[in-house]
Amino acid sequence: MSRKDLTLLTDFYELTMMQGYYKEGQNETVVFDVFFRNNPSDSGYSICAGLAQVIEYIKNLNFTYEDVDYLRSLGIFSEDFLQYLGGFHFTGDIYAIPEGTVIFPKEPILKVVAPIMEAQLVETTILNILNHQCLIATKASRVVFAAGGDSIMEFGLRRAQGPDAGLYGARAAIIGGCAGTSNVLAGRMFDVPVLGTHAHSWIMSFKDEYTAFKTYAELYPDNCTLLVDTYDTLKSGVPNAIRVFRELRDSGVPLKKYGIRLDSGDLAYLSKKARKMLDAAGFPDAGITASNDLDEYLLHDLKQQNAAITSWGVGTNLITSKDCPSFGGVYKLAAIQNEAGEFVPKIKLSENTEKITNPGNKTIYRIYEKDTGKIKADLICFADEKFDAEKDLMIFDPVSTWKKTKLVGGTYTMKEILVPVFKNGECVYQSPSVMEIAEFCKAEKDTLWEETKRLFYPHRVYVDLSDRLYEVKKSLLDQMSME
Amino acid sequence: MSRKDLTLLTDFYELTMMQGYYKEGQNETVVFDVFFRNNPSDSGYSICAGLAQVIEYIKNLNFTYEDVDYLRSLGIFSEDFLQYLGGFHFTGDIYAIPEGTVIFPKEPILKVVAPIMEAQLVETTILNILNHQCLIATKASRVVFAAGGDSIMEFGLRRAQGPDAGLYGARAAIIGGCAGTSNVLAGRMFDVPVLGTHAHSWIMSFKDEYTAFKTYAELYPDNCTLLVDTYDTLKSGVPNAIRVFRELRDSGVPLKKYGIRLDSGDLAYLSKKARKMLDAAGFPDAGITASNDLDEYLLHDLKQQNAAITSWGVGTNLITSKDCPSFGGVYKLAAIQNEAGEFVPKIKLSENTEKITNPGNKTIYRIYEKDTGKIKADLICFADEKFDAEKDLMIFDPVSTWKKTKLVGGTYTMKEILVPVFKNGECVYQSPSVMEIAEFCKAEKDTLWEETKRLFYPHRVYVDLSDRLYEVKKSLLDQMSME
Repeated sequence: MSRKDLTLLTDFYELTMMQGYYKEGQNETVVFDVFFRNNPSDSGYSICAGLAQVIEYIKNLNFTYEDVDYLRSLGIFSEDFLQYLGGFHFTGDIYAIPEGTVIFPKEPILKVVAPIMEAQLVETTILNILNHQCLIATKASRVVFAAGGDSIMEFGLRRAQGPDAGLYGARAAIIGGCAGTSNVLAGRMFDVPVLGTHAHSWIMSFKDEYTAFKTYAELYPDNCTLLVDTYDTLKSGVPNAIRVFRELRDSGVPLKKYGIRLDSGDLAYLSKKARKMLDAAGFPDAGITASNDLDEYLLHDLKQQNAAITSWGVGTNLITSKDCPSFGGVYKLAAIQNEAGEFVPKIKLSENTEKITNPGNKTIYRIYEKDTGKIKADLICFADEKFDAEKDLMIFDPVSTWKKTKLVGGTYTMKEILVPVFKNGECVYQSPSVMEIAEFCKAEKDTLWEETKRLFYPHRVYVDLSDRLYEVKKSLLDQMSME
Repeated sequence: MSRKDLTLLTDFYELTMMQGYYKEGQNETVVFDVFFRNNPSDSGYSICAGLAQVIEYIKNLNFTYEDVDYLRSLGIFSEDFLQYLGGFHFTGDIYAIPEGTVIFPKEPILKVVAPIMEAQLVETTILNILNHQCLIATKASRVVFAAGGDSIMEFGLRRAQGPDAGLYGARAAIIGGCAGTSNVLAGRMFDVPVLGTHAHSWIMSFKDEYTAFKTYAELYPDNCTLLVDTYDTLKSGVPNAIRVFRELRDSGVPLKKYGIRLDSGDLAYLSKKARKMLDAAGFPDAGITASNDLDEYLLHDLKQQNAAITSWGVGTNLITSKDCPSFGGVYKLAAIQNEAGEFVPKIKLSENTEKITNPGNKTIYRIYEKDTGKIKADLICFADEKFDAEKDLMIFDPVSTWKKTKLVGGTYTMKEILVPVFKNGECVYQSPSVMEIAEFCKAEKDTLWEETKRLFYPHRVYVDLSDRLYEVKKSLLDQMSME
């Protein structure tokens, strides 16, 4: 399967800035951080996803003759710069948080350390990929949480924002906890389960509903979920489905995975009625699948009303993250290397304190409570800082700095969560398979307190700064306000 | 540029149904309609977009060996069916409304007339493409409307839901009326204007703001928009920009397209203050570009408050259609051809009257008021119905059937808006260029009444049924309720 060439998938200003740096002979190594300011949908956490596609993008980064010809045709780029682009490849370092990890606002989830011309070019596509997949993985995780133990199927391809949104959205949804997708290409590309039975058109193309059900059941006796709402769910659909199940059973066909699907009407009411009818007919193990504009909020309510639904198909609201369709990740300059090879921290001011960036070449340590394995806080610090978890540790809230937390030595453990992905332009990271990432993500969610997983008004996880980082940030701010 | 192979980009149930039809030897020609039930964002109209990509998809539809191997590996498809897929291509007819046309709920915007196995396969991707591009073109059209005559630039790539959402979203945004995009790949693929200058990182990578501005202005004197909000917009950014403009002017460099860009803070307040400072310094023709979480609602308010902004960059809220991120187009069976070659109308019931489909092999006539050229109504009718605009015409509201409108012969004109795109699997339609479509779309919007273009509570355009279609629908409904 051929990949689209994404090298030109960038904002035009990245190229005008690149030419500017080129002309100025200015190509010092810099540090850019990708981070986000808020969890989508007021979630207590987000899920990291998209790194495998970022890696693929960086590996394939090169300007073809046609790309260069197109840029030449714009009449704004000089021949020497175009020639430089013709030989361009990425030579820098990238660090990232592995896919499936639970992540929190303000921490760098990916860090580029590269000559500024290279670091600038890759901004837009890295953000595009991570913003999309983190968004959908997070949404999927919330939907899966709302469903308790029931399985969730991703059904949104037809409403996704273009082919890639369907494809990589399905990938992210599986990472976030969905059991499968209806998207066949996603199944093939990412080796994930594909699922689905039939549509209303199947029913309508036969002379009656019974014949449509019967034909389908005889074709697919091993996995037979009949869509019962084409004409009248309780008067026609469920009775016809029961008739077909009975005929199969009477003729000796073993019923394995079978049941009905509801796709309209009130799912709580209809599922409870249908459950009674199926049970009374001797089919207590028939599943009831439901779909129809579901999201985590409706799912949460339907579960509370004891809807008799065993599995759920979620489409539009998951694949577009309807209530919050963008993730808001940004890419900010954090440091510039000087001639001595030191990273000089840079800061961007803002009238809004929350929007002031964290300066310097940084990393993140995740701090766990030793007893429970639950996350106590994330600590952002300089990349060269070392800690001893046997010693007490004081951490600061970066905005409300009076909020200090003292961690007592020996009661906590620490893990660096930003790992090397590219070194001098070479990929040094092997992405796990999507199903492995999904498994890892499930374990990651076990490190969250229940209070953080709650759908509404969740408890926020602390993302704090190290002593040293806090002091540097403070002095940079003081310095700027003096100017 | 290589296209991804989209043949497997389909819902799994399309393939299980296809195999079902294959096994049953059931492959009669059917009619499927694509239509939508509501305009996004409570708009009074939508914009049709995406047909060129649907055409490309249908033309390239074929199962590779690898596709077939993958399907075989799922253990649900038989060898004879897999062999059939190996030789599959589309042999049917497709009719569609040309891109850039204004469209309204409930009318078929695309119609597939094909053997049911083929018509079923293409459902998901056709919906995916049209749903996405119609959504973004409609959103763009609203944003452009809110801006009055000011130009709108599409800046959303980094927040789009994956690469395609950025790429085809930019295409749709241009169709909807945007003047250009920041997306370089979209510029190359669709031959549309690309725009952009520099980011905060450019400013931060120089020793001070003045030096950053000066360097940029000397590099790009012909198109020099300086981003003024990195440190302090009115105290530092605008004065430094003025200093640079003055130095350029004093050194004899002609200032052509130049100005400032605001990317934070209150855009009404800051733009008016900046305008005064620029005017006082002798730069009345300096443009003021603004960006920062804009949408049609904020733009509408900023215009009302006389914000002194001359062009606008719109990102996240446009590229995701944030307040309404899905279009809701559906694909419904409308007729099945019988052995005599006649299309037998089919209908899908629903507990909700609004959701009952319109049966039959249909087309749409757009009715214009002769005097003004404005749209009077759209008329859905059978494909073989003919009308004489010199005669009186009675049309029915399909839900509130007591709402009848009598059009007096000679006061109106009619145009069939569904045109042939594929005939017997051959493409018979040549897509215009994106800029031609954008031009056409502008003219299309002139056929709308001002009341329909309004952002809030717009006047709805009537989409009515012909006498004959209304009678057939009624008798089908009567017939079903008798069963």
